[in-house]
Amino acid sequence: MNEIKIFAPASVANVSCGFDVLGFCLNPVGDEMVIRKVAQKGVRITKIDGVTLPYETEKNVAGVAAMAYLKDHPAAFGFEIEIYKKIKPGSGIGSSSASAAGAVFGINHLMDSPLPLKKLVHYAMAGEALASGVPHADNVAPVLLGGFTLVRAIAPLDIVELPTPNELVATVLHPQIELKTAHARAIIKKTVALNKAIQQWGNLAAFVSGLHTDDYELMGRSMVDEIIEPYRASLIPEFEQIRFAALKTGALGSGISGSGPSIFALSRGKETARNVLDAMENVVSKLPIAYDIFLSEINTQGIKILNQS
Amino acid sequence: MNEIKIFAPASVANVSCGFDVLGFCLNPVGDEMVIRKVAQKGVRITKIDGVTLPYETEKNVAGVAAMAYLKDHPAAFGFEIEIYKKIKPGSGIGSSSASAAGAVFGINHLMDSPLPLKKLVHYAMAGEALASGVPHADNVAPVLLGGFTLVRAIAPLDIVELPTPNELVATVLHPQIELKTAHARAIIKKTVALNKAIQQWGNLAAFVSGLHTDDYELMGRSMVDEIIEPYRASLIPEFEQIRFAALKTGALGSGISGSGPSIFALSRGKETARNVLDAMENVVSKLPIAYDIFLSEINTQGIKILNQS
Repeated sequence: MNEIKIFAPASVANVSCGFDVLGFCLNPVGDEMVIRKVAQKGVRITKIDGVTLPYETEKNVAGVAAMAYLKDHPAAFGFEIEIYKKIKPGSGIGSSSASAAGAVFGINHLMDSPLPLKKLVHYAMAGEALASGVPHADNVAPVLLGGFTLVRAIAPLDIVELPTPNELVATVLHPQIELKTAHARAIIKKTVALNKAIQQWGNLAAFVSGLHTDDYELMGRSMVDEIIEPYRASLIPEFEQIRFAALKTGALGSGISGSGPSIFALSRGKETARNVLDAMENVVSKLPIAYDIFLSEINTQGIKILNQS
Repeated sequence: MNEIKIFAPASVANVSCGFDVLGFCLNPVGDEMVIRKVAQKGVRITKIDGVTLPYETEKNVAGVAAMAYLKDHPAAFGFEIEIYKKIKPGSGIGSSSASAAGAVFGINHLMDSPLPLKKLVHYAMAGEALASGVPHADNVAPVLLGGFTLVRAIAPLDIVELPTPNELVATVLHPQIELKTAHARAIIKKTVALNKAIQQWGNLAAFVSGLHTDDYELMGRSMVDEIIEPYRASLIPEFEQIRFAALKTGALGSGISGSGPSIFALSRGKETARNVLDAMENVVSKLPIAYDIFLSEINTQGIKILNQS
């Protein structure tokens, strides 16, 4: 096998109650990437389609993740990476994570998969660190493993795969506001009130229990973030109005996806999710901003192989 | 029915990773209480055996909890309460919670159970507030409902019943140091570092996932408290040494029970739990302090009716 073409999906991190630890994988939107074995050692980004991103390996999240992997698992050959970017950088649905996860997935596959998927999270995080300044795993873990994942700990890395209730459907709205992850992180305070933290861990634990028991109402009640979202909401003026429309239309919960500006909602069943999409679009379409909006089942597979030769 | 005799068990709150929200119910140790319908309205504490506690209804946690219940659900008659105290007050295994939960359970039962058990938590909390200055539910919920419980939210109250992996066995050591809950609460800071809070909610969510999947190793890895325990450990000088002995002997995890001074460990299987008990006792028996130590399966029933007439 010399070449692999993959689909590296978008993802939603934080999910309201799980800042920095919870995430889930989306279905319809994702990057395509081609990873190819070549004689010359090292990693080269040979094509970036769709957006302007750096070609220098050490400045590209896919390149950095690939190099991190190869540092621990040297290969007798090198790799070329082509990125067909469909996830808009800075949209808050894991654009850099898809590239980073895709690169290590592809290289690992071309090396006959010496590492299980869970072990790849560590290397994909190196790409994330380049993008956001902090190595976090809440997007790359669901991209690599599919479904919902929980990052119990970063060092040593401990990822818990969570169940996916099968009626859960996401609606994702990307209002096209420029918002850098590093900036969205910078406005977060380094300390939090203990009583708010207690609420947060109560909510996250209840959400996880809801995933295990298919308790959709409990998931909805638990999708509260009183710690991070209030700060980030101030960077996304239309957030409250859009969330209100989603909840009023029957969404279980709604919040900022990752560090924003994308806004997600979770609903029970496609019909409700479709109504939620209409309600969210009804708000955003009246505002003077461009947007994308889509429905997504929870992607339980993660990265998908499109082709290999 | 005019009289009920019940067993109101001890409980462990916090469970390392779940400060103020997580708790589980113990088996062998608990108070006995007799609750009796009488013609004269109101609530009277007519007997307290085993310890010195106030007889005045409004100063007794059982009395306060009973009055809170009756305020919302008036009765045409009154109640006498006898308390045969077996749980030492101030031991950190829910002594006041057992009395408070027992009182509302008994009265509700004598009124033909108009309220489901979950609804009783709210009234038992009124007793807790008297004991610790803060109305919290992490002990009274498992006493009333059995097993492990999660307090998602206090207002409005939202209790989640969690599964009980059936090989889980607790070891509980009570070093007889005087330590008031209110004092143990007072040394806790009102703000916490965000990075510590993230670790805490990652651990709690993982612990809950472990309960749902019988993943004992995951439960063990998740039993970490970097927020509260460091402060409280300073009030219990022998804690670190005892915990170390428990973990070295195979306990999944070990921590301070509630606000201490009791120290608990969770193990997989009775044999390990028995070895853990021996190891903990080996440490404490060399110290110049009195202690109690016991093994307990997780009590999935909660309060038990011993007699009714």
